[in-house]
Amino acid sequence: MSTGTWFQGHLKELSQDECLELLATKTVGRIAYSGPDGPEVVPLNFVLHNGTVLIRTSAYSALGQRLQHGVAAFQADEIDEFTQSGWSVLLRGSVEPLTDDSLPAEDARPVVWPEGQRSFHLRLTPLIITGRRLLPA
Amino acid sequence: MSTGTWFQGHLKELSQDECLELLATKTVGRIAYSGPDGPEVVPLNFVLHNGTVLIRTSAYSALGQRLQHGVAAFQADEIDEFTQSGWSVLLRGSVEPLTDDSLPAEDARPVVWPEGQRSFHLRLTPLIITGRRLLPA
Repeated sequence: MSTGTWFQGHLKELSQDECLELLATKTVGRIAYSGPDGPEVVPLNFVLHNGTVLIRTSAYSALGQRLQHGVAAFQADEIDEFTQSGWSVLLRGSVEPLTDDSLPAEDARPVVWPEGQRSFHLRLTPLIITGRRLLPA
Repeated sequence: MSTGTWFQGHLKELSQDECLELLATKTVGRIAYSGPDGPEVVPLNFVLHNGTVLIRTSAYSALGQRLQHGVAAFQADEIDEFTQSGWSVLLRGSVEPLTDDSLPAEDARPVVWPEGQRSFHLRLTPLIITGRRLLPA
């Protein structure tokens, strides 16, 4: 199998609309940003809101401290080990904190799974939306 | 549910050994590196080899071009939407290309799912290994 000639699939670029549709099916994605020791990638709950990604964290977390303003990316994927196929989307853009005034209604805010106070809302506004689907061979 | 008081789980830090054991159960992870438009995160096949992560790409891909030397991170996770739990590990370190001489035996090399020539092997040697498990509430 190491020659890679078995089970080979086809990679297909996704449109921006397809990327957002696929992302909307997920409740967990991964925020990526530059930390002092290189890229950091942290899974977290999110919601899509008007084409932006809303996340919630603690203002005192590493995430809250480093991400208040700046460049970041949000990634999500779905991978099927059995058919060796899947998709992946990547939203690159800038992050800014949300003030209480700019928060959407309660039922449009992200619900987080871990316990603890996470009242700090951040918004990633994507500038570049890319994605690929790997079709089964 | 937006108050976040339901289904809340406990976050637990993982030891380095636990991180590597969990990573070894996966065949797909995500490489993260700094691109010209911010962090890039790309899922790909990998194998663990002597505590390092081996990946395969094309020397002409964006990944192959940007990753030949430098700081990168490798992330993997497993997320259970039903129990709202899971784990995530992150290996941060440096990437270098592997010469033919330094490649492991055929059966210890990464097998890639997508079609196409991917004869360029890269090794990520982790300097920092961290991970967390989110226990069901």
